[in-house]
Amino acid sequence: MSEQYILVTGGAGYIGSHTVIELIQNGYKVVIVDNLINSSFDAVSRIEFIVGEKVPFFNVDLKDEKSLTKVFETYSIKSVIHFAALKAVGESTKIPLDYYDNNVNGTITLLKVMNNVNVKTIVFSSSATVYGDATRFENMIPIPEHCPNDPTNPYGKTKYVIEQIIHDLYNSDPEWRAAILRYFNPIGAHPSGLIGEDPLGIPNNLLPYLAQVAIGRREKLSIFGNDYNSHDGTPIRDYIHVVDLAKGHIASLSYLNNLESNKGLFREWNLGTGKGSTVFDVYHAFSKAVGRDLPYEVVGRRAGDVLDLTANPTRANTELEWFAEKSIEDACKDLWRWTTKNPFGFQLDNYKWTIFGEIEGNRLHTVDLDGFKVSITNYGATIQNIELNGDKLVLGFDNLESYQSSSNPFFGATVGRYANRIGNGGFTIDGKSFKTEINESENKTLHGGSQGFDKKQWLGPIVLKEDDNSVSLSFKYIDPNGSNGFPSDLETIVKYIVSPKNTLTIDFESQIVGNNGDVTALNLTNHSYFTLGDDVIDEYQVELSTPKYLALDSNQLPTGETKKLDSTSFKFGSQQFDDDFIINEANELLDTRSQDLKTLVNISSSSHSIKVSSTEPAFQLYTGDGIFVGEFKSRAGFAVEPSRPVNAINSSNAKQVILRKGETYGSKIQYEFA
Amino acid sequence: MSEQYILVTGGAGYIGSHTVIELIQNGYKVVIVDNLINSSFDAVSRIEFIVGEKVPFFNVDLKDEKSLTKVFETYSIKSVIHFAALKAVGESTKIPLDYYDNNVNGTITLLKVMNNVNVKTIVFSSSATVYGDATRFENMIPIPEHCPNDPTNPYGKTKYVIEQIIHDLYNSDPEWRAAILRYFNPIGAHPSGLIGEDPLGIPNNLLPYLAQVAIGRREKLSIFGNDYNSHDGTPIRDYIHVVDLAKGHIASLSYLNNLESNKGLFREWNLGTGKGSTVFDVYHAFSKAVGRDLPYEVVGRRAGDVLDLTANPTRANTELEWFAEKSIEDACKDLWRWTTKNPFGFQLDNYKWTIFGEIEGNRLHTVDLDGFKVSITNYGATIQNIELNGDKLVLGFDNLESYQSSSNPFFGATVGRYANRIGNGGFTIDGKSFKTEINESENKTLHGGSQGFDKKQWLGPIVLKEDDNSVSLSFKYIDPNGSNGFPSDLETIVKYIVSPKNTLTIDFESQIVGNNGDVTALNLTNHSYFTLGDDVIDEYQVELSTPKYLALDSNQLPTGETKKLDSTSFKFGSQQFDDDFIINEANELLDTRSQDLKTLVNISSSSHSIKVSSTEPAFQLYTGDGIFVGEFKSRAGFAVEPSRPVNAINSSNAKQVILRKGETYGSKIQYEFA
Repeated sequence: MSEQYILVTGGAGYIGSHTVIELIQNGYKVVIVDNLINSSFDAVSRIEFIVGEKVPFFNVDLKDEKSLTKVFETYSIKSVIHFAALKAVGESTKIPLDYYDNNVNGTITLLKVMNNVNVKTIVFSSSATVYGDATRFENMIPIPEHCPNDPTNPYGKTKYVIEQIIHDLYNSDPEWRAAILRYFNPIGAHPSGLIGEDPLGIPNNLLPYLAQVAIGRREKLSIFGNDYNSHDGTPIRDYIHVVDLAKGHIASLSYLNNLESNKGLFREWNLGTGKGSTVFDVYHAFSKAVGRDLPYEVVGRRAGDVLDLTANPTRANTELEWFAEKSIEDACKDLWRWTTKNPFGFQLDNYKWTIFGEIEGNRLHTVDLDGFKVSITNYGATIQNIELNGDKLVLGFDNLESYQSSSNPFFGATVGRYANRIGNGGFTIDGKSFKTEINESENKTLHGGSQGFDKKQWLGPIVLKEDDNSVSLSFKYIDPNGSNGFPSDLETIVKYIVSPKNTLTIDFESQIVGNNGDVTALNLTNHSYFTLGDDVIDEYQVELSTPKYLALDSNQLPTGETKKLDSTSFKFGSQQFDDDFIINEANELLDTRSQDLKTLVNISSSSHSIKVSSTEPAFQLYTGDGIFVGEFKSRAGFAVEPSRPVNAINSSNAKQVILRKGETYGSKIQYEFA
Repeated sequence: MSEQYILVTGGAGYIGSHTVIELIQNGYKVVIVDNLINSSFDAVSRIEFIVGEKVPFFNVDLKDEKSLTKVFETYSIKSVIHFAALKAVGESTKIPLDYYDNNVNGTITLLKVMNNVNVKTIVFSSSATVYGDATRFENMIPIPEHCPNDPTNPYGKTKYVIEQIIHDLYNSDPEWRAAILRYFNPIGAHPSGLIGEDPLGIPNNLLPYLAQVAIGRREKLSIFGNDYNSHDGTPIRDYIHVVDLAKGHIASLSYLNNLESNKGLFREWNLGTGKGSTVFDVYHAFSKAVGRDLPYEVVGRRAGDVLDLTANPTRANTELEWFAEKSIEDACKDLWRWTTKNPFGFQLDNYKWTIFGEIEGNRLHTVDLDGFKVSITNYGATIQNIELNGDKLVLGFDNLESYQSSSNPFFGATVGRYANRIGNGGFTIDGKSFKTEINESENKTLHGGSQGFDKKQWLGPIVLKEDDNSVSLSFKYIDPNGSNGFPSDLETIVKYIVSPKNTLTIDFESQIVGNNGDVTALNLTNHSYFTLGDDVIDEYQVELSTPKYLALDSNQLPTGETKKLDSTSFKFGSQQFDDDFIINEANELLDTRSQDLKTLVNISSSSHSIKVSSTEPAFQLYTGDGIFVGEFKSRAGFAVEPSRPVNAINSSNAKQVILRKGETYGSKIQYEFA
């Protein structure tokens, strides 16, 4: 691989994940290594969601020299930013061996491997804890880099020892380039509210604790002493926004990269604001962000605490031309956004994921709301399974390969760019005509072509607990200009909302991104096949909300005429449907989500029933006569595909399927099971 | 295993090996773990030789958690003395990662394993280097334990870090008992001259360097500065005899063991004499030991050197009741003994060893003096092979199992306690009769019984280069009172001397040890079968030094008569010999080694010849008619077994085979090949 990567160890962690985003947004390619023992893979999928691309991830422990070496063999790595570490001061005094083992052993192994493969640039995540109590000296507040080190706990000692090791390594081989970044107190979260600090157990630090008080997970904040010699009696620390901190890594990395060739370096830099804030300052700022005064109690001083540990960041300011730009207020706002969106961090009780198939990082995500189980995979953002108290209600495969096969009848898939059929081998917009891939007889393009959205690896998901105890999973895919013949780069987000009362809602949203085009034809739906317990659908009772459907010519394309069923209430029996029913002939909306959900069909068996609603003007009803795959036979399930009318792009009513740059396409579907 | 062991890591190293000896001589059971990357297994076999017992040894790297855990599962370990480390200051500045990896990683893994198996007592081999330049403070010379630490090189830092880790571990779990021993300058060697310091490459330290000057491996000593403020201008250090140092470990170990139960401890102790000596003091003491003034040159000061780094050992003196007792003069004498016996330490160019068979630690030792190759295994102290320019000259097996089998015709074995036959099922000494194991028809004991010396695992060898460029291998075995019916504990040393001109000399020496008896019957020989190139011996030309042999009765026991051959010069032809030829009927000597070697036989083929000499009064000549084993057929080789006459113990001439406590039994055999 010629392209050069930055290896980020601990890239799924708090500071690591924020740094990965900054790196990618600054044009770097990144590989993440993390053993996930104190971090979550969700951070990685959210990073991918934010940056809009896959980020290579290896679940590797740094102490595993063999696996780590393999990472360096797989990707061409230029330099390393090394975060991976255990980092809880209190915990480190209880299980010091784990701290030395993870932090020191892990780093030694990392350095050995780097040495072996001749990668000699490292940015090391150190900490102001290496200074220990800087107030023990004259004139060492604000703390400069030359302040003598004397860490007072095992965590701090591991950082100190690692600095020493890297320094000795540099002394032994001056080709090494090492930036030692000594963090002060990182706070805040990513402005997107998608990533932030996710402490396991009781938070050690002021703001995470305060956030848990605000969200109701803790009763009140304990303030350790208000008799210090500060403006409000509480100790002064240097709090820095995690995004500023992340930017410090970019700055130091490019500083190292800009050294004269064959010049090495070992250099420490403080990353702090230089501006001290008291505990009460922070308390007030966060209370303001939350909108109410949070409960607290002043208790006695904590052993080892001192008045003031503010950074002197002059060296970083001048040498790295880096400055902390965000305020405590910014940090508190961002933290509160992160907290409200993720009250339990990345942890969600009723959500689990597993690896699904061979595609790097493809996963199967399952939400289980007492018995109502929905499983969705990144591949095609596909509904792989819906279960009600153990009964399967959709057709799905238990392996990825079957989904990849061309014989897969779009089981559960997100269908795009253009659901259903396009005639004439393409379409014309503003006089400009586009040829789309022909994958059906008579010059037709079915479901966007052979490599449509259903065959793509979707980013994410972002899994969130919604206010009504629903759990939502949002997937993102950016379809490049020209794929299957469709114009423009198109970003699509499909959000699945699993709700109590056995309801699954799907929200589609698309926009044109990038500069490779400003218009496209678009029609999205989900292609689940429902089964209500029988081997075949013939005994199912059907209630349609409309008898009206489009008359088709011999090519299965609309003639322009509509027809009516005699009755909207019947058993499927042996009837075959592959017809497009019309709810709203005159739809003009590109984003139908403003509309109320309309019931389209009610279908029931002796044991179960499903109601499908949507905001869409039409829906395809398909009795699955063409299913012949694996264990599944003809008419094993039926599909209801709410969308825009078949081939609308080639009709007088094309407006509803033409998306222009700046506009938003949207639609909503809902399944209710009983 | 109920018995409790002390695990000694790095037990094959300089200080480790001396400590193992002290431990065993103080009644401790020891398990050694060493990865041998900067030490030699010879140290272990010499330890065994000195202490007279096997010492369990594991060639395990401390970083290998799995293998290390297995050691703790195999032996019940009570506490650990932890030496294993790289220890060359200069080297540590060149390859710091290896130092941190071996020393720090290794220790962390060791501590993890100890924690897992709940072994929480450790004596740690630290160093005065943790103090760095103690002269940077007021009143810190002699250096007390409370002197602040500031190591100035990666080696010293690894020791410092490990102290910290153990301290943090103790803080987290006060059940731990840790003795931190800070060594000053260890010098000297074991008084036996069998073990000592064996530096790889150019020695870092004064005395090892001086020793190499004395032995001619280095031109002259460089003295770095003679303008210090000492009585002779050279810097002052605290040199401590390695045996005193070793005893410090016993003292600290019993100190830890004598703490009140459920009381833990973390405590540092200096191990030094408290008496400083200058470089010139040491130089003069060693020159005196050598007997001449050694060449030296005064050069400029060495960066980082300071005037005086003497220990204050008061804490160890008072708390551990330990004192350094030996002088620099003692150390120099011992070092010189070790150096002259082992000019190249444990390294010998023309000696190699390999593991031989499944018995723990059984090895095959091969000396190769340009084309004359002799291989001897610990099992039975057996000659497994003798080769002259690729031609095998003795019968031997390529696997241990064949030697263990009862069908093995004593190929190459050391035969004891009583070579050849004893009649009447035993013997009587001083009116006390002893029944020996019957392993031949008619109430006879052949070659000491079915489990004689040939079936025992011998200790050692000690491999030494002799003045005439011979290489000697000495094996030791202590045969317990009662084995196969023989009385008293008997210690036997068999020394093989491989010499130029294709000569192999065997020296036997035995003494009664212990208090389980004060007399035994004894008759030793080596039972090699010689082949001179032909499939069978029939064409070999024989020249005997005597025609006289013992007449045997139908039980193959001497009648008392002697017979004479018509001629002492003949071809074997089809003649069968299993007869005892007499050189000196009236032998009274228990130790015949004072006698000159007498030629017994000259036997030659078209391609090779062998001359067998010995100091013994008789020799058995056996034409190997009874050989039927594996690839070897009848008369494939012949044996010449110099020893005392058959069944002498039951004859009027028994004196020569009765060994009493305080006496020494000895004999010598020599094979010369051409």
